[in-house]
Order: sequence, then structure tokens, then C-alpha cells
Amino acid sequence: MQIVTDPAAMQQLALTWRARGERIVLVPTMGYFHAGHLSLMEYGRTQGDHLVVSIFVNPTQFGPQEDLDRYPRDLDRDCELAAQQGVDLIFAPAAGQMYPPGYQTFVEVTEVTQGLCGVSRPTHFRGVATVVLKLFNLVQPQVAVFGEKDYQQLITIQRLVADLNVPVAVVGRPLVREADGLALSSRNVYLSPAERQAALKLSQALFRARDLAAQGERSRERLFAAITPLLQSEPRLRLDYLNLLDNQTLAELPTIQHTARLAIAAYVGQIRLIDNILLEVP
Amino acid sequence: MQIVTDPAAMQQLALTWRARGERIVLVPTMGYFHAGHLSLMEYGRTQGDHLVVSIFVNPTQFGPQEDLDRYPRDLDRDCELAAQQGVDLIFAPAAGQMYPPGYQTFVEVTEVTQGLCGVSRPTHFRGVATVVLKLFNLVQPQVAVFGEKDYQQLITIQRLVADLNVPVAVVGRPLVREADGLALSSRNVYLSPAERQAALKLSQALFRARDLAAQGERSRERLFAAITPLLQSEPRLRLDYLNLLDNQTLAELPTIQHTARLAIAAYVGQIRLIDNILLEVP
Repeated sequence: MQIVTDPAAMQQLALTWRARGERIVLVPTMGYFHAGHLSLMEYGRTQGDHLVVSIFVNPTQFGPQEDLDRYPRDLDRDCELAAQQGVDLIFAPAAGQMYPPGYQTFVEVTEVTQGLCGVSRPTHFRGVATVVLKLFNLVQPQVAVFGEKDYQQLITIQRLVADLNVPVAVVGRPLVREADGLALSSRNVYLSPAERQAALKLSQALFRARDLAAQGERSRERLFAAITPLLQSEPRLRLDYLNLLDNQTLAELPTIQHTARLAIAAYVGQIRLIDNILLEVP
Repeated sequence: MQIVTDPAAMQQLALTWRARGERIVLVPTMGYFHAGHLSLMEYGRTQGDHLVVSIFVNPTQFGPQEDLDRYPRDLDRDCELAAQQGVDLIFAPAAGQMYPPGYQTFVEVTEVTQGLCGVSRPTHFRGVATVVLKLFNLVQPQVAVFGEKDYQQLITIQRLVADLNVPVAVVGRPLVREADGLALSSRNVYLSPAERQAALKLSQALFRARDLAAQGERSRERLFAAITPLLQSEPRLRLDYLNLLDNQTLAELPTIQHTARLAIAAYVGQIRLIDNILLEVP
């Protein structure tokens, strides 16, 4: 497995592959891999000739009060795990190479980024859209694989790619959970045992809503009435949002026609966690 | 010469060329060709295997009070002229194909776009940056050729490409003038004979400044004092801006070190004209 840190060298290699008609798959990550990342690599391995995983904790997607400095990092361990998944190349640039002095260009997806995490993180998706477009230009993938854990991010990137005519298929893959339901996140390492217990309420609430929808419940009002007490029962948990959304446009839905996405964000102590689930009414 | 209007068909063709290792050159235009456009094609013809000229009057770079509706168009004549220049493919999409319903993504280059034309046209460069990036993704050029007539546009695109790691060489080519000095522009057709005469003051002022710089004059103040009376002597001419700029950053310069760009914009009747020139102090 190759490790490349220089953006120009990465692009040179990618353009050589493309000029030979070869197929490149990119899994963009911020590193500190868990089973969710590894499942994206496992899928990506089947989709092309070159499997590239980028590791870049992107400063422009963190707000000034957020956890950029303490975001967990372990490049050696990540490389070992990636090699085990059959990854061909790790692209791990430095922030100064991605945003050199004089840098001044940003990409904005203006609508799907407005609600949900866009409310508490107003510059987050601008940073995500910008860095992902840079990574697409550097790695030149035909296929890019993202986790559905960051569902609003996935929809933002799919919108970006369609609007700017970027020739890449953006594939969303199911999020991965612990046996007890907790959605995997690199930030979970910061949860104390008590906080981790409290965090389980998120997935428990989503599962309850999924079951109610499967039994025929279409009303947002009644779904929220059923799960809000569960969330409020945990004093360590402070809800940021709970929304019922159209799967593609992220428009808020008063009722479910066939499917919808239920998305939640909450603080547990200092840690902000997100989760989401697909609801299907038969 | 091929004429393609469907963006998906254009991209499919371009990706096929790229996968064969072939070299694509793009000359992006709004059509209604004059000798300036043709000189870009003539240069572009020498730079690769496939010479693509795009013709698209991009609505997002026109302000609400601007001349989108009356911008001159003549696709048949343009195709004839392009064929004579050895162009391989004209890409002429419809606005609805470039900005379908739900479109919501924009690219902003935040600094070099602030002064000059960015003052009177606050959304212009956002529209330019966005459409040019879309065209780059659709046509997949290794080389793109722009005229120096729109100098701030050229610098904006060079900045965009560097910042977003787009693998394309953005080449600026000298603007083309009439024998009497008037910079060629598709908008010149709207000038009455008297207005056309008045418009000559722009290039006359630039030439005078170029000559003074060549004789050793470095001071913006003295250069402007020398040419302002020339501009004020013409009642049909209303100055928008006159600026002395760093060639790359477009920062305003009080004095010329070695070279600088002198840029001017003025209204002649209803028509807004721009021009610029390189100043070199020996």
C-alpha cells in the first residue's frame, strides 16, 4: 500500500491511471477508523482498479468553537487497518498543502445544507463541499463512497456533484452500529461509560420510530410524541434536533408517504452525536 | 465539426477521449464571435487533439438589470467561423440543461473578485466561476484558453483552478483591438457611430499610460493625473473605475515596481465597456 502526502503527486498518479482507462474508487475520511470506515473500504474494493482512501481532518469544516484540535488521529493504526482491507493508496495531505497562503475559493450548496446540522454548524457544509471537490479533483475517482451516518453530508455531496457536473458516482452505504445500537463514530472514544449509556437513547428512539412506521404510523406528530419521552428521560442528553425528512431533498415532512429519513442530533456532555434511520411505511 | 447541445453527451465524449490519453483544449465563450475569439481558437488549435469551443450565454453571471436578454447571439454564423478555425466541436447547451430545477450550488472566489467589476456587478464572478467549473467538468480539458480582455475573470479562473486543484492549465491570451485601438467586444455592435468614437478614449488613455510607464513613470498618482483629462474630455463617457493593479493578486498599487495592469471600465450611453493594458517600467 502506497502512502502519498503531496497533492500534486497524488493528482499526477490519478491522471496517469485515468489516461490508461483505469477505474479509481475514493473513500474520503477524517481517519481514526472504526468498523464503519472499514465497511466503506470493503465495498469500495469491489468497485474499481485503484482503491484510494483519503485521511484529512479538514479545518474548514470545523467551527471556531468546535473540536478540530482534539479530533482523534492515529495515522499508523489507520494505515495498518486500511492495508488489511486491500486499500491501494492512502492520501494524507497536510492542511497547509490543501489550503496554502492566498487560498480563497469555496463551494456552497445553498439549500440542502440549511437545516439540521447546518443550523448549529453554519460554515460546516461549505467546508465539506469545498474539500470534497478538491479531493475529487486530486484523486479523480469514478466512484466515491460515503457513509449514511452523515446523511446530510451525503445528500450535499450528491447535490454538488449533480449541479457541478462532476463525473463521479457518489454512493451512500449503511451506517454501522455497535451490538447495543450506538452508531459508530470516531468521537465515541470521548464518551465516559455513563455518557455512552446515555447516548444509547438516540438509537433506541430511532428504532422505536422505525417499528411504529413499519406498523403503519405515518404522522410526524404521533411519531415524535412516541419517542420524545424516551429522549427526555435521560438528563445527560441535550437534544439539538429531531427531524422527519424527505430522503433526497431533506424537506421536512408532516407525514410519511412511503419512506422518510428520521434524523437526530444531541449533545452528551461536551460531545455532539448524530444518528439517522430510514422509515418505511408498508 | 460536431455540434453538441446535451451536457451528458458532451461529458461522455470527453471522458472517452481522456480514457484514451488524448488532449482536450477548451475555449469557453458566450458566442457572437469577433477576431478576439478567433485568435483564442487559433492558439487553442495548436495545444491538443480535440479543440472544443463552448457557446453559452450564462444567465447566472448577469445581474437583474443587465443585458442578458439583449446579449447578441448568432449560432449559425459562430459555427461557420469556428469551422474555419479548425474547431472540432461546438458545445452549446441550453440554460435549462445547465441549471435544471433544484439547482443550488455556487463557487465563490472571495478576494480577487471584490474590486473592479465586482463592485458594480456583485454576483457576476460567482456566476462566472460556477459556470466555468461546470464547463471544465463537462469538457474535461487539459488546457483552457481565455482572453485577457476580461482580465479579472482570467485571474479569478486561475485562482479557482489553483485553489480547487482542477487539473487544467488556464492560459490567458492578449486582447485584440481594432486598427484604431478599440478593444474587440461582442457588445461593440450596440455602439452608435458617435458612441464608438467616444469609446476610443479608453484605449487612448491606456496607451498614453503605457507610454509614460515605458518612459519611467512609476507613480499611480502622476499616471492618473496625466490620463484623467483625456477621459473627462468626452461627455458621452462615464467612468466606472480606473485602477492600477498587481498582475496576479489584483491588489491596488500606489507605484509600479516592474509591471502592473491598468484596468478601466466606463459606460458609453447604455453600454458598459472594459479594457486593460500591461504597464512595464524599464
